[in-house]
Amino acid sequence: MPGDGIGPEVMTEVRKVIAWLAEHRDVHFDVSEDLVGGAAYDVHGVPLHDDTMAKAQAADAVLLGAVGGPKYDTLDFSLKPERGLLRLRKEMDLFANLRPAQCFDALADFSSLKRDVVAGLDIVIVRELTSGSYFGEPRGIFKEGNERVGINTHRYTESEIERAARAAFELARRRSNRVCSMEKANVMEAGVLWRDVVTEVHQADYADVELSHMYADNGAMQLVRAPKQFDVILTDNLFGDILSDCAAMLTGSLGMLPSASLGAPMENGRPKALYEPVHGSAPDIAGQGKANPTACVLSFAMALRYSFDLGAEATRIETAVEKVLADGVRTADLLQAEGDTAVSTTQMGDAIVAAL
Amino acid sequence: MPGDGIGPEVMTEVRKVIAWLAEHRDVHFDVSEDLVGGAAYDVHGVPLHDDTMAKAQAADAVLLGAVGGPKYDTLDFSLKPERGLLRLRKEMDLFANLRPAQCFDALADFSSLKRDVVAGLDIVIVRELTSGSYFGEPRGIFKEGNERVGINTHRYTESEIERAARAAFELARRRSNRVCSMEKANVMEAGVLWRDVVTEVHQADYADVELSHMYADNGAMQLVRAPKQFDVILTDNLFGDILSDCAAMLTGSLGMLPSASLGAPMENGRPKALYEPVHGSAPDIAGQGKANPTACVLSFAMALRYSFDLGAEATRIETAVEKVLADGVRTADLLQAEGDTAVSTTQMGDAIVAAL
Ligand SMILES: CC(C)[C@H](C(=O)O)[C@@H](O)C(=O)O
Ligand SMILES: CC(C)[C@H](C(=O)O)[C@@H](O)C(=O)O
Repeated sequence: MPGDGIGPEVMTEVRKVIAWLAEHRDVHFDVSEDLVGGAAYDVHGVPLHDDTMAKAQAADAVLLGAVGGPKYDTLDFSLKPERGLLRLRKEMDLFANLRPAQCFDALADFSSLKRDVVAGLDIVIVRELTSGSYFGEPRGIFKEGNERVGINTHRYTESEIERAARAAFELARRRSNRVCSMEKANVMEAGVLWRDVVTEVHQADYADVELSHMYADNGAMQLVRAPKQFDVILTDNLFGDILSDCAAMLTGSLGMLPSASLGAPMENGRPKALYEPVHGSAPDIAGQGKANPTACVLSFAMALRYSFDLGAEATRIETAVEKVLADGVRTADLLQAEGDTAVSTTQMGDAIVAAL
Repeated sequence: MPGDGIGPEVMTEVRKVIAWLAEHRDVHFDVSEDLVGGAAYDVHGVPLHDDTMAKAQAADAVLLGAVGGPKYDTLDFSLKPERGLLRLRKEMDLFANLRPAQCFDALADFSSLKRDVVAGLDIVIVRELTSGSYFGEPRGIFKEGNERVGINTHRYTESEIERAARAAFELARRRSNRVCSMEKANVMEAGVLWRDVVTEVHQADYADVELSHMYADNGAMQLVRAPKQFDVILTDNLFGDILSDCAAMLTGSLGMLPSASLGAPMENGRPKALYEPVHGSAPDIAGQGKANPTACVLSFAMALRYSFDLGAEATRIETAVEKVLADGVRTADLLQAEGDTAVSTTQMGDAIVAAL
């Protein structure tokens, strides 16, 4: 689902990687395309058509470009492009959003942070994605006396917290074995429950993993101060939205960062899954061939690893991307010095395929 | 109200500045001291005694050190030190929390961000402080079937948004005349109302101020990427908690940052007001004479400016602080190179008084 803005452009480059895998590695995918976000609204009058929803549910993995754009700003809340993405997340029950914030060596100088603060950074935020303030009821804009009131509900059940926590602990075991859980237990009861449940799950089944807790405001500070202190960060939907974007920006190269949103295993054993680049639809550069397709290509690599048990092929793609960077190939978002010249979206895609 | 952790230590240094003003500037304050947070709990069994609340209501200004500490982590939610501070904010109706994030020239290298990204940084976050997820009802941990549910309510009325917006626009007029309002209008109805009301207030009374809107996740990214693009940032209680801490850390010197929380004018024309350093209670260094008292001294300077119409005296203190920094006097939190030696909390306070 290419979606809006630069979505279609970056998705085109992923197609080249898929073609390369078929030709050179005998790995074949049955790919179909459909509309989401503003693109779906333009055709169907809704940001996600029921047929598209059904196709997503039946797929082994969904790869999404991006949604949203100023053209849709004045639409009614229920028709906004974002609702299409949120419906996918909710109905596919994709509760564990994995957002790696990784600093590529060749790009460490590109961060607004000092090189030694971010070089070698490799953390993952596990963001709960199907509950909390994004979905809690009651919600809406109501009339109260003679004024309006805007209401959203931050709401988490024990089992919702538990399954997100398990995803974080499992991930930590395959990494540096450390989880830091972030909430505002000092001011919100939902945070108190979050901390309790995470602690219980830890004690019951993951005592081997190192667990710490941090208030989310301090978490934002620590991410800016010394991000390498973390391994896996576990947090809720709304805090995760802010903190993962903050973490992503530390790396200085948003155009490089993939994400995976995973749910429960389907009958075939594969998890429900949606993969998408962390960058948005970037309407300001859409259609100009300036977008960096790498985040979308790396999102596809995550799909190979998490949905199709093709970890070796995923690594192959990641290595190709690193080689391209080391060779100095740069899209416009990665230019550093005046006089550096940028390659186009297409050229970047071609360079990755050539490196493969 | 010195409060907990390093609160009492930093407050002691403010006393010296108050004494200096009496002696050398013939400016006299009627100062009384009381307990808040864990310190109040230890004595009264509650984090804020009713008598203290009444004294705060009657005061022209409250200066607070910090609240909280691990000793109180297991206390029932309603008894936590933070509840004392939140009660003060709520009952004094301190809706406008002003948090400057200012990068002192002498300390620019101390940031984890590159010098050119933060040198000269001077932004203010106006955080709504009496509503939103911190106070909305229903709230609590409830039983639902056989599991617990944690609930908090993100709730804003039109008039709550309006008065915070006015505070931001008024402040912007005295600065660079630009306000950027942050919410998640793309996913939360409360954010839609927030954006609507801010836009209405702007059109009606502040069309001369430059207004922009940004999603809060993008706001976190932009703060890390290029914080100097902002002048005044307007946001709600919970986003403000995270974003202002993120902004504070950009400066690299949390021990330097003051804040003011302002309410409606009292009968004497002064606004209800509470001033506090942005840093917390820092239990790890409490009682060791390591704390930096500057943020608390600068919070007192803000009190002079906003509560007592003593802007010239406030500037005098701020200039003294800058001189002390330029002279290389550093508390432990501001040490950069190995071999640098730190002055104690007391010595820093004395240095500021000497510079005065
Ligand atoms: C596009 C938007 C709905 C989304 C969110 O708020 O979750 C985005 O910011 C993200 O983080 O994936
Ligand atoms: C101590 C705590 C209650 C407080 C808050 O969450 O508002 C603090 O983090 C702050 O930002 O002033």
